[in-house]
Amino acid sequence: MTEHRPSHAELNAFLKAEFPQNRCTLEEVDETDGSVVVAHPVGESELRPGGTVSGPVMMTLADVALYLAILARIGIVPLAVTTNLSINFLRKPRADRRIMARCRLMKLGKTLAVGEVWIFSEGEDEPVAHATGTYAIPRER
Amino acid sequence: MTEHRPSHAELNAFLKAEFPQNRCTLEEVDETDGSVVVAHPVGESELRPGGTVSGPVMMTLADVALYLAILARIGIVPLAVTTNLSINFLRKPRADRRIMARCRLMKLGKTLAVGEVWIFSEGEDEPVAHATGTYAIPRER
Amino acid sequence: MTEHRPSHAELNAFLKAEFPQNRCTLEEVDETDGSVVVAHPVGESELRPGGTVSGPVMMTLADVALYLAILARIGIVPLAVTTNLSINFLRKPRADRRIMARCRLMKLGKTLAVGEVWIFSEGEDEPVAHATGTYAIPRER
Amino acid sequence: MTEHRPSHAELNAFLKAEFPQNRCTLEEVDETDGSVVVAHPVGESELRPGGTVSGPVMMTLADVALYLAILARIGIVPLAVTTNLSINFLRKPRADRRIMARCRLMKLGKTLAVGEVWIFSEGEDEPVAHATGTYAIPRER
Repeated sequence: MTEHRPSHAELNAFLKAEFPQNRCTLEEVDETDGSVVVAHPVGESELRPGGTVSGPVMMTLADVALYLAILARIGIVPLAVTTNLSINFLRKPRADRRIMARCRLMKLGKTLAVGEVWIFSEGEDEPVAHATGTYAIPRER
Repeated sequence: MTEHRPSHAELNAFLKAEFPQNRCTLEEVDETDGSVVVAHPVGESELRPGGTVSGPVMMTLADVALYLAILARIGIVPLAVTTNLSINFLRKPRADRRIMARCRLMKLGKTLAVGEVWIFSEGEDEPVAHATGTYAIPRER
Repeated sequence: MTEHRPSHAELNAFLKAEFPQNRCTLEEVDETDGSVVVAHPVGESELRPGGTVSGPVMMTLADVALYLAILARIGIVPLAVTTNLSINFLRKPRADRRIMARCRLMKLGKTLAVGEVWIFSEGEDEPVAHATGTYAIPRER
Repeated sequence: MTEHRPSHAELNAFLKAEFPQNRCTLEEVDETDGSVVVAHPVGESELRPGGTVSGPVMMTLADVALYLAILARIGIVPLAVTTNLSINFLRKPRADRRIMARCRLMKLGKTLAVGEVWIFSEGEDEPVAHATGTYAIPRER
């Protein structure tokens, strides 16, 4: 496993390059528990009629948060791929706030990493969604 | 439960209105088993470096396919919301083909609908992803 | 929603009556956040060759913990049923310790409750499994 | 990957040895698509008050069916372990019939196998539950 832990800036640069279409930004890397906070803006393109943030936007955010939580620990490994993602939608997010995901890994094995993601409307206490996901980590790196 | 089953054209019109940003199109409604086929184009915006269709695009497609399979059966009920979606990514999709989702409901209850979605690269036999999802159906309609 | 919150003893009595075959016991109800701790003994009947606690034992524990966390909040409602359970197995549990589940609800709505369960070998810090589950709550009670 | 495909009898013998407490039996191995059918008796020990087959019994059946579907393909590899299982409960099973699981693999990779399981009350058409699960396959064998 690589020893180099990428910086916050390196991770954001990688994110821009790897997922050029998505609008997530890495906000925070917690050095103590390795959790990351990732944000997604909410505007016209993220809303459905009625003012709900669309489910796919939250799934995108969960997937990116998991990916960044892994890369923050193992270094930038572009070949890690999601094998499974499961999400529960809990409450309606606010239409006028960014959505924020906090992801923490529950397991970082040699071939699989499993993490949990809580999604909130920025500044709110009650989660709007919760996801768990598994990434397969390529064997040789 | 409403008796009116919307036409293929009505469903596509609703999709355009409800999810204006997404690029899914309803391709087929099977009258015998109620399954639907939904397509998503694959181009620059759907690909990650290396030529993989991004996971969030497949999750979007799965979510839309579930939603349309339900609406095809109960009529256009804009307030149905996803409560849970779980997806397994199985194989790398092709970069030069649309991705196609076939969704069939396993249960259509009064308050919950549960469906299964198989995702393929157009014209290929082996699935690239499989999802199951639950939608909550509003009580009064 | 019923106002009566059942006592620890009432919940354990219900558990014995409702699931007579299973060997889970309610250990703790946290009044502040409503979480519950449920234990399952580990002996010959729970082990597979090699000394692993079998997956189904952990799934049983997760399901019971979710059920009790809900009943602790809404009162004893025998008709609540699991609609979905998703579990990730993270590490090998110890063969010589009970397994303990801590469950906290993420959402308690009128018709659906969603909870998260962490499973540990008693006295250990690292979780052996993590589950999320949804229960449907009967409308009239 | 081992070439030897175990016989129906070998799989049942292994099942008895590996999971001595559980009461599943392998009923069928379909040579064409590799699917397996596994049964579980339903009696006093499987029922909850009200005559419902308990959720954990169905989860056990799903897990065993996945395991046997994998072993039927790769040979008897005792170290394969479940990493994830997700189940949707769809309908109330009958109290007076066995429950039957049909499992088919969607992917059999070098390190991960993913399968789908449909559960029925014996002789009935409508599924009572649907599960998907992932097994990690040990690297050297």
